[in-house]
Amino acid sequence: MKFVYLFSEATGFSRDLLGGKGFGLVEMTSMGLPVPPGFVITTEACKNYYENGQKLSEELKNQILDAISRLEKITKKKFYKDGEQCDLWPLFLSARSGAKISMPGMMDTILNIGVTRESLEFVSNETGDSDFSHSIYLRFLQMFSDVYAKISKEEISSLYDKSGSFEDKVKKIKEIYKSKTGFHFPENPYDQLLLAVEAVFKSWNNPRAIYYRKMNNISEDSGTAVTIQMMVFGNYKENSGTGVAFTRNPTTGEKHIFGEYLMNAQGEDVVAGIRTPSRIDNLKVEMPGVYGQFVEYAKKLENHFNDMQDMEFTIEKGKLYILQTRNGKRSPAASVKIAMNLLKEGKISELDAIDMVSEKQIQSLLHPYFKKDSLKNAKIIAKGLPASPGAAVGKVVFDAKEASECFNNGEKVVLVRNETSAEDIEGMSVSEGILTVHGGMTSHAAVVARGMGKCCVSGCEEISIFGESFCCRNFKVNKGDYISIDGSLGNVYLGEVELDSFEFSKDFSEFLEISEKLGGIKVMANADNPESVGIAIKMGAKGVGLCRTEHMFFGKDRINFMREMIIAQNSDDRKKALSKLFEFQKNDFYNMFISAKGKPVTIRLLDPPLHEFLPKSEDEVDQISKDLKVDKKIILSVSDSLKEFNPMMGHRGCRLLISYPEIAEMQVRAIILASIESSRKMNLKVIPEIMVPLVGDLREIRFLKEIIRKSAEKVMNENQFEIDYKIGTMIEVPRAALVADKIAKEVDFFSFGTNDLTQMTFGFSRDDAQKFLKDYYENKIYDFDPFSAVDETGVGELMKIAVKLGRYANPSLKIGVCGEHAGDPKSVRFFKSLGLDYVSCSPFRVPVSLLASAKK
Amino acid sequence: MKFVYLFSEATGFSRDLLGGKGFGLVEMTSMGLPVPPGFVITTEACKNYYENGQKLSEELKNQILDAISRLEKITKKKFYKDGEQCDLWPLFLSARSGAKISMPGMMDTILNIGVTRESLEFVSNETGDSDFSHSIYLRFLQMFSDVYAKISKEEISSLYDKSGSFEDKVKKIKEIYKSKTGFHFPENPYDQLLLAVEAVFKSWNNPRAIYYRKMNNISEDSGTAVTIQMMVFGNYKENSGTGVAFTRNPTTGEKHIFGEYLMNAQGEDVVAGIRTPSRIDNLKVEMPGVYGQFVEYAKKLENHFNDMQDMEFTIEKGKLYILQTRNGKRSPAASVKIAMNLLKEGKISELDAIDMVSEKQIQSLLHPYFKKDSLKNAKIIAKGLPASPGAAVGKVVFDAKEASECFNNGEKVVLVRNETSAEDIEGMSVSEGILTVHGGMTSHAAVVARGMGKCCVSGCEEISIFGESFCCRNFKVNKGDYISIDGSLGNVYLGEVELDSFEFSKDFSEFLEISEKLGGIKVMANADNPESVGIAIKMGAKGVGLCRTEHMFFGKDRINFMREMIIAQNSDDRKKALSKLFEFQKNDFYNMFISAKGKPVTIRLLDPPLHEFLPKSEDEVDQISKDLKVDKKIILSVSDSLKEFNPMMGHRGCRLLISYPEIAEMQVRAIILASIESSRKMNLKVIPEIMVPLVGDLREIRFLKEIIRKSAEKVMNENQFEIDYKIGTMIEVPRAALVADKIAKEVDFFSFGTNDLTQMTFGFSRDDAQKFLKDYYENKIYDFDPFSAVDETGVGELMKIAVKLGRYANPSLKIGVCGEHAGDPKSVRFFKSLGLDYVSCSPFRVPVSLLASAKK
Repeated sequence: MKFVYLFSEATGFSRDLLGGKGFGLVEMTSMGLPVPPGFVITTEACKNYYENGQKLSEELKNQILDAISRLEKITKKKFYKDGEQCDLWPLFLSARSGAKISMPGMMDTILNIGVTRESLEFVSNETGDSDFSHSIYLRFLQMFSDVYAKISKEEISSLYDKSGSFEDKVKKIKEIYKSKTGFHFPENPYDQLLLAVEAVFKSWNNPRAIYYRKMNNISEDSGTAVTIQMMVFGNYKENSGTGVAFTRNPTTGEKHIFGEYLMNAQGEDVVAGIRTPSRIDNLKVEMPGVYGQFVEYAKKLENHFNDMQDMEFTIEKGKLYILQTRNGKRSPAASVKIAMNLLKEGKISELDAIDMVSEKQIQSLLHPYFKKDSLKNAKIIAKGLPASPGAAVGKVVFDAKEASECFNNGEKVVLVRNETSAEDIEGMSVSEGILTVHGGMTSHAAVVARGMGKCCVSGCEEISIFGESFCCRNFKVNKGDYISIDGSLGNVYLGEVELDSFEFSKDFSEFLEISEKLGGIKVMANADNPESVGIAIKMGAKGVGLCRTEHMFFGKDRINFMREMIIAQNSDDRKKALSKLFEFQKNDFYNMFISAKGKPVTIRLLDPPLHEFLPKSEDEVDQISKDLKVDKKIILSVSDSLKEFNPMMGHRGCRLLISYPEIAEMQVRAIILASIESSRKMNLKVIPEIMVPLVGDLREIRFLKEIIRKSAEKVMNENQFEIDYKIGTMIEVPRAALVADKIAKEVDFFSFGTNDLTQMTFGFSRDDAQKFLKDYYENKIYDFDPFSAVDETGVGELMKIAVKLGRYANPSLKIGVCGEHAGDPKSVRFFKSLGLDYVSCSPFRVPVSLLASAKK
Repeated sequence: MKFVYLFSEATGFSRDLLGGKGFGLVEMTSMGLPVPPGFVITTEACKNYYENGQKLSEELKNQILDAISRLEKITKKKFYKDGEQCDLWPLFLSARSGAKISMPGMMDTILNIGVTRESLEFVSNETGDSDFSHSIYLRFLQMFSDVYAKISKEEISSLYDKSGSFEDKVKKIKEIYKSKTGFHFPENPYDQLLLAVEAVFKSWNNPRAIYYRKMNNISEDSGTAVTIQMMVFGNYKENSGTGVAFTRNPTTGEKHIFGEYLMNAQGEDVVAGIRTPSRIDNLKVEMPGVYGQFVEYAKKLENHFNDMQDMEFTIEKGKLYILQTRNGKRSPAASVKIAMNLLKEGKISELDAIDMVSEKQIQSLLHPYFKKDSLKNAKIIAKGLPASPGAAVGKVVFDAKEASECFNNGEKVVLVRNETSAEDIEGMSVSEGILTVHGGMTSHAAVVARGMGKCCVSGCEEISIFGESFCCRNFKVNKGDYISIDGSLGNVYLGEVELDSFEFSKDFSEFLEISEKLGGIKVMANADNPESVGIAIKMGAKGVGLCRTEHMFFGKDRINFMREMIIAQNSDDRKKALSKLFEFQKNDFYNMFISAKGKPVTIRLLDPPLHEFLPKSEDEVDQISKDLKVDKKIILSVSDSLKEFNPMMGHRGCRLLISYPEIAEMQVRAIILASIESSRKMNLKVIPEIMVPLVGDLREIRFLKEIIRKSAEKVMNENQFEIDYKIGTMIEVPRAALVADKIAKEVDFFSFGTNDLTQMTFGFSRDDAQKFLKDYYENKIYDFDPFSAVDETGVGELMKIAVKLGRYANPSLKIGVCGEHAGDPKSVRFFKSLGLDYVSCSPFRVPVSLLASAKK
């Protein structure tokens, strides 16, 4: 089996076989670009190495030796053995790793292999520059020790005297090597080369590489290639240098060469930051010929690879060499601009453009972020979970009510709480960001914050709240102190970090349009106020897929009417309180319909258990007893009677509406009347979709459908106006999926509530699961949090059953998802594969889901 | 269409058409028994009546008139019109209802139709006994007013003077009739007869009949027949009388005629209890000829119907008539005895014997019950839910610990609590019975009590506990007062009611053997101590299908070691505490294996969340802090960290074992060592089955299987003894059913936990659901409690999926059910239809499930 190919032999071979780096070099060689000659040891050789008990086979060694001798002929240089006398210029080689998918910085490189005592002397004599030859050798010794024997640069520098002579330094490094490894430093370049190849193979399995592959879903089996290439020296004489450049600006995406270079420097010196490199534009002045060549090559490469390229080059005595090219990393903003420009330039297809931007990039684009410069001086005082992306700066407050007060005084605040609950909603909505001590990525705080498009760090267990201050890492932060939080990273900073935010560009809008066209699944948004609806539509949502009505009851001006309703001792009193709530609801819906401009709005009838609306602390009970003029005992007794062992599995959703049909009647009345009034106002027909939560049985939906019908008919008759409203159910308890055929005959649409469906299918609550899920990840029982990405095997199977039964019984049934998963790219693609009509996610997730649906 | 048949014309027609009563009369007529002649108006006529807008069709009326004229010929009597002069003896008729399935007392009867002023006089003259003729007419007037016009006997008696003359009484009744209905009393017997037929048809739809059909699952469509029959008079002259008798003793089942009669009495006088009837044996002396005839007829009838008969007879002037025969109601004990005797007499098949006994009868047989006589004077002071059958008498205690203390002092107690939890187990186990204020039929108290075969009344919301007493219905019951509770009826009595209990008879054992043979599904028992195992096996269980190990940790002598384990701050401390628990567990298992005598025992590894084992009150925390010498703060902080939002969906089952594999290791070690020691002791191979709860993913069971394997191997190696243990999983979260193929490959058996599966499939917890289920029944959304009988549509569908996938992937997989439903007859038959191998229920439910599985 052939494991080794000269660059010139491997044209047309795959990236899988050659690795990314080797592939680039082979391509460039075949394009006639000035690439220092070399050869590739394939990924198959790496596999062979591991299959062979981590030993280089004789076969492989022979092929490498053969390749060297051919390289000697091409380069007219010689790769010397230790002790061999020099007549030709010595061939120095680099050995670099290169996997199929780039794993930058994860694996190892050794430069300048091939130095012997004799060749060192030869180069000194020929160039008359012993500093140059010494630096070549020292760099080799360091890199070899580091890569092969894991003796870090820092370790070496701490042990030897930098001001010593070259001979002293060499001796010292070799002594360190001996004492650390127990072996003499290998003096023969042929041995060094083979050991370097082995070191690269081994680096495939170093912990950070394994971690990187896991994080990026790269297969463990693919292995790395090794490229062996003739060294060229940017630090050789005055007309030499080295640099890195992009074909387009990686920060803004603008179309111009962007890069840096250093004269008289080798390889990584540009990146290392010891000397400050020059901007590439200076090269135009300094070496116009070389610059001209470089621009030409850059253009060629971009046209060849049809993507923005990140290139490394070296100039040796005035001659330009290209050492590497690859698709360049870019900022989120640049990724969209570059994709759209390449599309417009006719270089790529729409699908290519879509593939060129990741969902993570889109997401990070949409939220405010900290200015990079400002972050340099920022002090991280704690780390939590990145629960809702974006960045926020504000004064610390510990109480939701206080947040509202500060907001009214024009102050910006970050709400810090142990955890949040429904009654904190208003305070959360006026805060810049939310920081919680407990709770995971799907805790109340996280879910609500994402819905609001608000930055949130949750589960920040490092901090402890004591009264009006919190402590962490020896810092004490008082109420009113400024903090800054980064919901994309989970960082908490002391003080104010400067913010920046994205402008909704033309490119971005066009990009979303293409995503939508290619996606083929409708993306709706979860929104429950006119502002969110507006944002959602700006973000590309085709309407509102979930309006949670309970959030509307928590406002300061209405919560007490809700409580009156709950505390009511008979149906009459309940209706009285409901009639007060009716006005609020109607106005809420009216404003949402206006904001939705005729796009469909799906409204879920009241879902949470009633106890969520009642006060928790004694003080609050006292206050409410006064406000409502109701005996405290009654409040406590109602509160007591509503207590539940497992609130998640309690008296909520349609069960509540069956017990208190008055609530459903009031809500339907409000929806239909708001539809009529907004239809008249806008002179177009509003189509509200009324959604019943938590249905699990045919007769539940039949019962409520009857109530909805009657209430709607009544309002329409009173107003002499017909509204083409729809009725649907959530599919969120497993039983609903199993009897979906029966339910489907009664309704216009299904909306999977994958949060609850996941909880009940797995049998664990998302709040409680965080405690043991860490043990699950540790023991490799779960690969991911089923509340972040939908469980295709279990929950997905139930969804398949429901879709099949539902569509069979009612072919015109519309089916969607309104759970958190609707904003997760992998899940969105799964939902699309199930043939769903739509997904509905947080407004700021809409572009992410649009993009996700468009990708293969 | 022919709606009317003379008895002699309808031989061989079905019970559906003739109704039960008519069918009996027709059969007896064809057998040549002395049945007063008559005719049947079929159930088809009833349907026709309802289809015809509740009017008798002309066709039907004509057929009735025709039948009367034919009856006149047969009887040589005449059915007179009002005002018609009499020459022949008048024909008096009865009109009785008779549905296909007997609905005793639910529908109506009118006797003595056909009396006119003229015929009354004729009879007075002929007999010289005007009292007799008057009583016939008065009885008719009362019954007609009652049945046709809904004027109750009580209403009539309250309004008229009993000491008045006959003429006065007749006048008064007709006045009442006029004033109540607005119509004159119909005087013409033909009209009366047709109205009586209509009244019987209408009575099919009276509320109590509808309720009875609903309770007994009788179809609404089948309708009732009406039998019209010549009256014979047991109150006519001295040689007349009437009686009721059974072919066998309905209380004991013994084979002898058993009944009562009254001389000079009509129809219901025997039942009404105004005069005390004589035992049938006296008839042998009083009228030996008649008695001899009766015995002969009784024998004929039993042989004909192949079941014990309940007969009504009348003697008119020394001539015996049989008026009715039907399969007789009998006591639970008698039902078994009669079935087994008839089987042994060769009269019926085994399947017939099975069908002759109901599951309810079997169940009520197995528990202590109150003596009937003793109940007569007992005062019911409250009613709750019949949560666990049986009866109990004891002193009231309100605390589980106190129950244990009383038990140690030799006192019998009834434990009264608002609700119970796991820490009450020991107290419950030593109490005679348990009474709880809250909780449904599947509350903790109910489930545990049924498991213990202990009487329990739950959800007795009428009572309120205040400190050391409780109040209800104006009674105050103090600690130490005696109460008696009936777990089959839900009654709570003040004071001591005398108890009786069933002897396990030979008939009963044989009956269970037949059930088992015909059932074809194995019945196992849920048991977690040697005593329960013993009872289970006596009851016919083939082994233990579920041993809940958590109950073993609540004993006074071990709970603190459990707490030490939980509070442990590191794995070493935890192991130390576990090693103490190990000894207890091993002994528990050893004794159970000995008690099971080689029958399989399925042991479930620890299931409940740890917080269930920690103290709740501050006093307890103080005590434990002292006992364990652990800082109170640590206990509180552990307790706090274990709190869960939804304990049902929390850190329990296999999740707990994955977080703390030491627990699983200890339990497996104890199981295997106990298996080895008991195998050696009994000289037979004990086969323990180790069951992992709450599995929902392949990798959960893989992980734990590895731990179980390793622990088991270790003990077996140490002891040089091989145990053929099995590993299985509960299927109790919906996901487990959906990925059953994957799980099945790893295990030997599945056991459906239908309690949890029901909770998670419906998405409601059984504790919380009781609050809204009443609204569901009221609105006809659910017909039954899905925790009592398995939901075949939803949960059943998941089970089907799991069985199909499981058997496909592992054809030798054993599958059973160990949830509460395994003791419910309807559910057991459903499980059998799914092809399950076994069900495992409470020990006292084993015979019920055996019988249920044998029925079609």
